[in-house]
Amino acid sequence: MAALQKLLVDVHTHVYLPRYASLLRARLNAPRILTRSTPSGQTEDRLLILDDEPSGGRPVGAQYWDREEKLKFMDKHGISVSFVSTANPWLDFLPFSDAQVLAQELNADLETYCSTSPSLSPTLKRLYGFGLLPLVPGAPASALAPAVSQLASNHPHIRGIILGTRGAGAGLDDPALEPLWGALAETGLVVFLHPHYGVGAPAWGARENGHVLPLALGFPFETTIAITRLILAGVLDRHPNLRILLAHSGGALPQLSSRLASCITHDPEVAGRLKHDARWYLGRLWFDAVAYGAAELGFVSEAVGRAERYASVSGKAVGEQEARRSGSQRMVFGTDHPFFPPLGESEKWQSVVENLEAIGEVEAWSEEDKDGVRGGNAMRLFGLQ
Amino acid sequence: MAALQKLLVDVHTHVYLPRYASLLRARLNAPRILTRSTPSGQTEDRLLILDDEPSGGRPVGAQYWDREEKLKFMDKHGISVSFVSTANPWLDFLPFSDAQVLAQELNADLETYCSTSPSLSPTLKRLYGFGLLPLVPGAPASALAPAVSQLASNHPHIRGIILGTRGAGAGLDDPALEPLWGALAETGLVVFLHPHYGVGAPAWGARENGHVLPLALGFPFETTIAITRLILAGVLDRHPNLRILLAHSGGALPQLSSRLASCITHDPEVAGRLKHDARWYLGRLWFDAVAYGAAELGFVSEAVGRAERYASVSGKAVGEQEARRSGSQRMVFGTDHPFFPPLGESEKWQSVVENLEAIGEVEAWSEEDKDGVRGGNAMRLFGLQ
Repeated sequence: MAALQKLLVDVHTHVYLPRYASLLRARLNAPRILTRSTPSGQTEDRLLILDDEPSGGRPVGAQYWDREEKLKFMDKHGISVSFVSTANPWLDFLPFSDAQVLAQELNADLETYCSTSPSLSPTLKRLYGFGLLPLVPGAPASALAPAVSQLASNHPHIRGIILGTRGAGAGLDDPALEPLWGALAETGLVVFLHPHYGVGAPAWGARENGHVLPLALGFPFETTIAITRLILAGVLDRHPNLRILLAHSGGALPQLSSRLASCITHDPEVAGRLKHDARWYLGRLWFDAVAYGAAELGFVSEAVGRAERYASVSGKAVGEQEARRSGSQRMVFGTDHPFFPPLGESEKWQSVVENLEAIGEVEAWSEEDKDGVRGGNAMRLFGLQ
Repeated sequence: MAALQKLLVDVHTHVYLPRYASLLRARLNAPRILTRSTPSGQTEDRLLILDDEPSGGRPVGAQYWDREEKLKFMDKHGISVSFVSTANPWLDFLPFSDAQVLAQELNADLETYCSTSPSLSPTLKRLYGFGLLPLVPGAPASALAPAVSQLASNHPHIRGIILGTRGAGAGLDDPALEPLWGALAETGLVVFLHPHYGVGAPAWGARENGHVLPLALGFPFETTIAITRLILAGVLDRHPNLRILLAHSGGALPQLSSRLASCITHDPEVAGRLKHDARWYLGRLWFDAVAYGAAELGFVSEAVGRAERYASVSGKAVGEQEARRSGSQRMVFGTDHPFFPPLGESEKWQSVVENLEAIGEVEAWSEEDKDGVRGGNAMRLFGLQ
């Protein structure tokens, strides 16, 4: 098992499986893939995720759907195992009946994608997956728990689900979703909470800033709101075994967590609903290490590791360095592939190199802590060791 | 001067001067102060800041307008000097002509409020102020630089301005505001950038969470977007002497700053406009220490102190501890008084105690660093030593 501690494991890596890419190509409005002519007379495929996509969308190609491209990318960066998830917007734009059929088909596709991937050992493949649920606007609550059970029973290489923030249309704090959380907690599937819509667009202003504001700020804001609403709704109190992995290191949740706790304290009706100080819940979550900087990672681990101080009963004193070390155990490397591709023909992707360097540079982390963030923590989280 | 190093200085403390409170009382829609009967037959004043204010607004009383209450609050918490600013929404809701007259009147009121406050020494008062500019939707750009000059010349106790995020209606990256930044940089007035509208309201959902989501998340998101837009517009490149103080420790800017840098790198048109990596600009800003937690403060100081690494020319290696110490020099204590009042009859305000304890608990900071954050840095920033 010692060798597994050294694996590099990517928990944040996306795919549009061929069946999904075909669907996007057949559509006439966003989300869609369209083919257009370039000024030089060539053709190129562009991905339009949102109706008001900046810069005419982004280039899209084989790295989005071809498994060989995923494996090449992994080899180039020394990634042993990847937990692949459908990229946003998942099935959000479909009516429930279509979403239900497509979720089953895409989960079966993903199971094959993973189960037929190269083996690292008799019990370890190079590819695992996050499945899809037909959790779209209007989805009947009664369909969700069965979908979770079916996913968990039939797809051994699917170890979690990827989840947007809208739920069945009313967000993730919708009381109708209670059976969903119960089923997810029971199966042990990891919930990868990921943004799509962004938050803040009316405040971006008139200047042309490309994708910078929606991606750098709008995405993490969306995740921050979604997990905060889950906390405020008591979902983490009622489902202590629920395992939620937050994209992009939890967005702004760590930095705003003490402010959140203070605002809750000053709103007794809200405070009275919760079992613990808001900061306690950060210790129940997992965070990918997709933050591009060592200071950010060290801080997230401290915000996670300090959580025990804030238990409502027998809170424990936890020092800064101790918090940073223990908190690292809930952080897991990710790349966000195939987004943020290199600008030039460089051998490695800068976005990946930065995230790996950041892990290496967190001063408070021991080599063992760093190995955990690079791979060991993910293997443990997903039950692979 | 050594004694001044030990002063506790509050840079984030608000007032509705009597003239402003009267205006709010005369209004029939938000922002307004209304008097209502309580179930027990008493009357109470409520402050409605926004049209859709949660919880029917908040209680408002003498602590908002009575200088004696401000001084009592300061005495209770050992605060020697306060830099008082009008609370949001300032003059945003007025037509320019009204805003221009009222800004002059309120600045004169504030000068009197400060200049007639108790003295700590022959050259030091207990109260200083941030003034108001008539920067409201539709304000003519030609009026702004003269208003800055007039403010700086005539009001020696007004050491800065408080600024919302909407500018003349198109945000702070509006090219029409260029003369404003020039005038502010020239006079040395500190720009206190403060949220009001919040960002993200459509994503709050249907559950009743009081003020928690708009205050804990929406406010810092708004500040984060505003300062990011200023950076992206090159304002900090063109006005290196501009001194901007960010409310609530910069919101989410520090935690998202490496992601911001990465997104800019992947958008060459945006990157080409900027002189430096996004993280460099954090070293040019000031941050209040209103974050309610030691981990947050330590992280903000690290994000500020590491900025020199990211200079486009001759970036310097800066270690984690070194960054945390040097970054602390741009952090300044604040209380957000009279918001977040105590729930009970406790002697001290919990929100203030938490912020003071947080400063004391940052492990990387020396006693000298902590004294700086408590007061010395503010005295230096505002030219009082």
